[in-house]
Amino acid sequence: MTLRFGLLGAGRIGKVHAGAIRNDNNATLVAVADAVPAAAEAIAREHGCDIRSIETIADSPDIDAVVICTPTDTHADLIELFARKGKAVFCEKPIDLSLQRVKDCLKVVEETGAVLMVGFNRRFDPDFMAVKGAIDQGTIGTVEMVTIASRDPGAPPMDYIRRSGGIFRDMTIHDFDMARWLLGEEPETVMAQASVLTDPAIGEAGDYDSVNVILRTASGRQAIITNSRRATYGYDQRIEVLGSRGAVAAENHREANIEIATAQGFTRPPLLNFFMTRYVAAYANEIAAFVRAVREGGSTPTTGEDGLRALALADAALKSVQEGRAVRVSEILA
Amino acid sequence: MTLRFGLLGAGRIGKVHAGAIRNDNNATLVAVADAVPAAAEAIAREHGCDIRSIETIADSPDIDAVVICTPTDTHADLIELFARKGKAVFCEKPIDLSLQRVKDCLKVVEETGAVLMVGFNRRFDPDFMAVKGAIDQGTIGTVEMVTIASRDPGAPPMDYIRRSGGIFRDMTIHDFDMARWLLGEEPETVMAQASVLTDPAIGEAGDYDSVNVILRTASGRQAIITNSRRATYGYDQRIEVLGSRGAVAAENHREANIEIATAQGFTRPPLLNFFMTRYVAAYANEIAAFVRAVREGGSTPTTGEDGLRALALADAALKSVQEGRAVRVSEILA
Amino acid sequence: MTLRFGLLGAGRIGKVHAGAIRNDNNATLVAVADAVPAAAEAIAREHGCDIRSIETIADSPDIDAVVICTPTDTHADLIELFARKGKAVFCEKPIDLSLQRVKDCLKVVEETGAVLMVGFNRRFDPDFMAVKGAIDQGTIGTVEMVTIASRDPGAPPMDYIRRSGGIFRDMTIHDFDMARWLLGEEPETVMAQASVLTDPAIGEAGDYDSVNVILRTASGRQAIITNSRRATYGYDQRIEVLGSRGAVAAENHREANIEIATAQGFTRPPLLNFFMTRYVAAYANEIAAFVRAVREGGSTPTTGEDGLRALALADAALKSVQEGRAVRVSEILA
Amino acid sequence: MTLRFGLLGAGRIGKVHAGAIRNDNNATLVAVADAVPAAAEAIAREHGCDIRSIETIADSPDIDAVVICTPTDTHADLIELFARKGKAVFCEKPIDLSLQRVKDCLKVVEETGAVLMVGFNRRFDPDFMAVKGAIDQGTIGTVEMVTIASRDPGAPPMDYIRRSGGIFRDMTIHDFDMARWLLGEEPETVMAQASVLTDPAIGEAGDYDSVNVILRTASGRQAIITNSRRATYGYDQRIEVLGSRGAVAAENHREANIEIATAQGFTRPPLLNFFMTRYVAAYANEIAAFVRAVREGGSTPTTGEDGLRALALADAALKSVQEGRAVRVSEILA
Repeated sequence: MTLRFGLLGAGRIGKVHAGAIRNDNNATLVAVADAVPAAAEAIAREHGCDIRSIETIADSPDIDAVVICTPTDTHADLIELFARKGKAVFCEKPIDLSLQRVKDCLKVVEETGAVLMVGFNRRFDPDFMAVKGAIDQGTIGTVEMVTIASRDPGAPPMDYIRRSGGIFRDMTIHDFDMARWLLGEEPETVMAQASVLTDPAIGEAGDYDSVNVILRTASGRQAIITNSRRATYGYDQRIEVLGSRGAVAAENHREANIEIATAQGFTRPPLLNFFMTRYVAAYANEIAAFVRAVREGGSTPTTGEDGLRALALADAALKSVQEGRAVRVSEILA
Repeated sequence: MTLRFGLLGAGRIGKVHAGAIRNDNNATLVAVADAVPAAAEAIAREHGCDIRSIETIADSPDIDAVVICTPTDTHADLIELFARKGKAVFCEKPIDLSLQRVKDCLKVVEETGAVLMVGFNRRFDPDFMAVKGAIDQGTIGTVEMVTIASRDPGAPPMDYIRRSGGIFRDMTIHDFDMARWLLGEEPETVMAQASVLTDPAIGEAGDYDSVNVILRTASGRQAIITNSRRATYGYDQRIEVLGSRGAVAAENHREANIEIATAQGFTRPPLLNFFMTRYVAAYANEIAAFVRAVREGGSTPTTGEDGLRALALADAALKSVQEGRAVRVSEILA
Repeated sequence: MTLRFGLLGAGRIGKVHAGAIRNDNNATLVAVADAVPAAAEAIAREHGCDIRSIETIADSPDIDAVVICTPTDTHADLIELFARKGKAVFCEKPIDLSLQRVKDCLKVVEETGAVLMVGFNRRFDPDFMAVKGAIDQGTIGTVEMVTIASRDPGAPPMDYIRRSGGIFRDMTIHDFDMARWLLGEEPETVMAQASVLTDPAIGEAGDYDSVNVILRTASGRQAIITNSRRATYGYDQRIEVLGSRGAVAAENHREANIEIATAQGFTRPPLLNFFMTRYVAAYANEIAAFVRAVREGGSTPTTGEDGLRALALADAALKSVQEGRAVRVSEILA
Repeated sequence: MTLRFGLLGAGRIGKVHAGAIRNDNNATLVAVADAVPAAAEAIAREHGCDIRSIETIADSPDIDAVVICTPTDTHADLIELFARKGKAVFCEKPIDLSLQRVKDCLKVVEETGAVLMVGFNRRFDPDFMAVKGAIDQGTIGTVEMVTIASRDPGAPPMDYIRRSGGIFRDMTIHDFDMARWLLGEEPETVMAQASVLTDPAIGEAGDYDSVNVILRTASGRQAIITNSRRATYGYDQRIEVLGSRGAVAAENHREANIEIATAQGFTRPPLLNFFMTRYVAAYANEIAAFVRAVREGGSTPTTGEDGLRALALADAALKSVQEGRAVRVSEILA
């Protein structure tokens, strides 16, 4: 059985998923929808698929599943629509910027019994999977401390920042998901600190560009996350896990695996500069995991609950910055 | 214009090229030929192309170019056939095990004016291209010494070894091509030493599994090549170039970019174990370069002359081992 | 002029300083004092110096300076004694576990005009000096974020832990000093989280073994510190500084710079396992810096004020853990 | 028992050995001799030892052993003199540039039963010892191929080059010794290639600056050595050994273990630039090994035979370059 896809949203990330679907032997792209006709046409031309409206896709019997890549404020509505239509749903993170809206949406998903997967692509990166594998095999013993450094090459456009929900909900949310996954235990308290260091305009928009977070679980495991919107040397994505018997770390990816030695020293190229290049394998694995979950009927590896909990950590972090105190996740999720 | 391909030979390397053609927006696979029907059918099914005989492909007006992946002893005949039919020809190395046969074949290519490219895939590896780029930009000054370490994870099957023409013509030939490319000057003399260390059966078949070679150009530039048919830690592929102002080196590719630290030390995974995984980007770039050369009408980046010269170095190396002396390339090519 | 030293305390760290003094052409060890005769004798024998009581050393005209390596609870008294006797004083950290006692002691130092240097050895490590040098040369632009990972191979004996003042005052204090040094600006607020993960006995003694700290300066620069009392792979000491134009990091030191490749992967030896081996060059540089400061009459590179401020950060961190909130350093130092 | 030393030659390497003797608890420097009074005085002042003539040292009952650091052409005579006087002898390499002279000298050593150690310092480098340890423990199985890259930051002064005996006898000789040590089997044949690439004056002096060598043992094990008199990035000293079960390699030493990341990439400092800095631990271990051999009465770890065989390989390499053929060591040693 080949899973037949409708793609909602033909922007940057939509193109990535269209490519991943094409390269997956168990998936096929049937139709694309986008408010901008030219964007939909580009995908249709490259992948030989139909252009349909969202409503038509919802009623198309030749479509089994949708990938939602539309703007964030449409995600929850679309999830509900397609869940009710009996389609399997893959939705880019976040489900919504409002925790209450996410909860309501997930209730619909639960009632309809729909398959829902939220796009936390990093869990599907081969290196991070190898890190998780080492943990699961017991190589480093019991997990104690997780360290995540995640820095973007540069800030997104200001108009994106203004509607992103802030750095914690837009950027750190990936690290919150990674931390939960690697800690193997839910964080109970969140402490965070935030500054504006790279561009005052970010501060004027009410956001931060430089943040640090400490998470703590009931048993005392901890994770620290360090984020910056600017790293001149490329897209910096490192994780490290300390356990009772050792540690495991994933290294960055460079533009090329070469080293030049001169009188000035030994120089290796900067890091890959763009999340799509860095995570190309992750996006492919992610769609494959979704297809597998739908075909085999089990739960998806990154559920609506995962989306909810990562968002709750983001909200708790923001509250911690604002109130200068450790915030319990239960305050947020209650 | 999309270049329309016929694929001759549907074995392991044939599949690699079929995949590269599919992923190239300027190329399409029209037909495949293979003496083994099941092999041809597998390719035809996966890529939606025809199955035709070699003769039919030669006469097909809807085919512009062929990729020759048949057994080595058919290469020269097929090159001549398709050159005469006006097709552009991409041929896996080597053109032939006999230097005289290669020369005769190249004469036909020259007379017909056909486009010919020989498959020295490593020149298209992104890391090695970055090494060459650093040289060409003058970053390391004038090239002086090239060091190439090339080791296979394990020896090929004995029946392959028996008809491979020996380690110099089968394995070192890639390094000879790399050395020529990186030295920027033709080697004039060859010194080589060879042993059987990994499996006596290789020696019984008249071949070696462990060889070292020194090449020297007219101006005194040198290259050393070290080869083994066995490296337990994976497919070892390193180059390093020393110049008057510095050095540049390409590192190996691992199964994953992680490191595990325990009381026993810090461990990173073994190297990618298979040439197709290691050189997946190189094979894609190689076909793209061939397509570009055909479309733009220039010469190919790896010509028949390159095939001839690499083979001459292999013959000189073997002669050096047998006679215990420095062999001049002019003795071989005369 | 050779600086003539008296050594107070002939234990583990006393021996390190005795060795550093011997290897310094501008320093000589005149006498040692220790409550344990055998310890003093061992030093006297190895270095050919006298054994004297602390009181005698205080009155010895042939002694210019003392190195205080006695138990922590004697430090402040000894500093005051020797400051009043006109000796230059090098004292191991901390000056005292009580902030008030430190303040009183520094007042005496100020009144006497004595030279005082506090032993924050890490600032004198060649790698960390190179990191600081890169910052000072502007290579990474304006400092934004500092990351310090500092993990001991194993916890000290429980009786040491009980009188150590706790992990923040005993272990993290080094990192607080490093953070201040690298941030180039005083931290204003401290957030910290702490757990007991490696040994319940540590918790029973009222201490923690696993802590994370976030520091924030007035301009918004931040530092994160991650500590554990257990790292099976050795003494883990890493710093990384992110700036507006780049980043700089110092790597760990291994037992040997070799790598073994097998079918299981590529393995490098564990880290140096002991702070004295790891920081042997730092201890030598530290004494040399003290000698230079005394000879040249300038201020010492690590002053009593540095000792005070690092301790204040430790106290703030502990308070942050206890009260679950961001603690302002001004609350502590006021 | 403390071994009482006389030092012959107070130049650069003499100072290194004087320092190593001072730091060795089982050794003491009693006297120094040098044709240049100021040089001897400097050592005498720093180490508090006597200045004596060579003849006086030879007859001094309070001297057990000598370290010979005089010019090469005096080595053999001095070895013979001190062997006859019953002193233990440590002599810098080479014993002599003439193989016959070395043989005659070793005969005297044998007749007198004197202890002789030749200064192949690299065998005592902790990293290289760790490499050898891994081999001896069987970690990499049976040794098959050794690769040695050895490059100086820059050529020595021309007047040194003129009397050095040429690059093979002066520089490669260290690598020949390493190769013998790591191969675990005597090389039988030598192939070498040589050029002048860094400075024509070296060629005018009849020497080379860029050489490659292949050694082969009876069982087929091979070693390759690549040398250059110029490496802008520092003193390049790498060894790698491939065995049936894996490989082991030693890495270079840098000026500092830091890395700077900017938009231009990730840069680590150049290598340590000077053999004395790079091999400071090796020189200390070397003297300690000599002292141990004298005290314990066993054979030295680097014997006169080792000096002879390394020189024979150098002579064979030069002959191989001159005659363009594989030279058997037996032709040289016969």
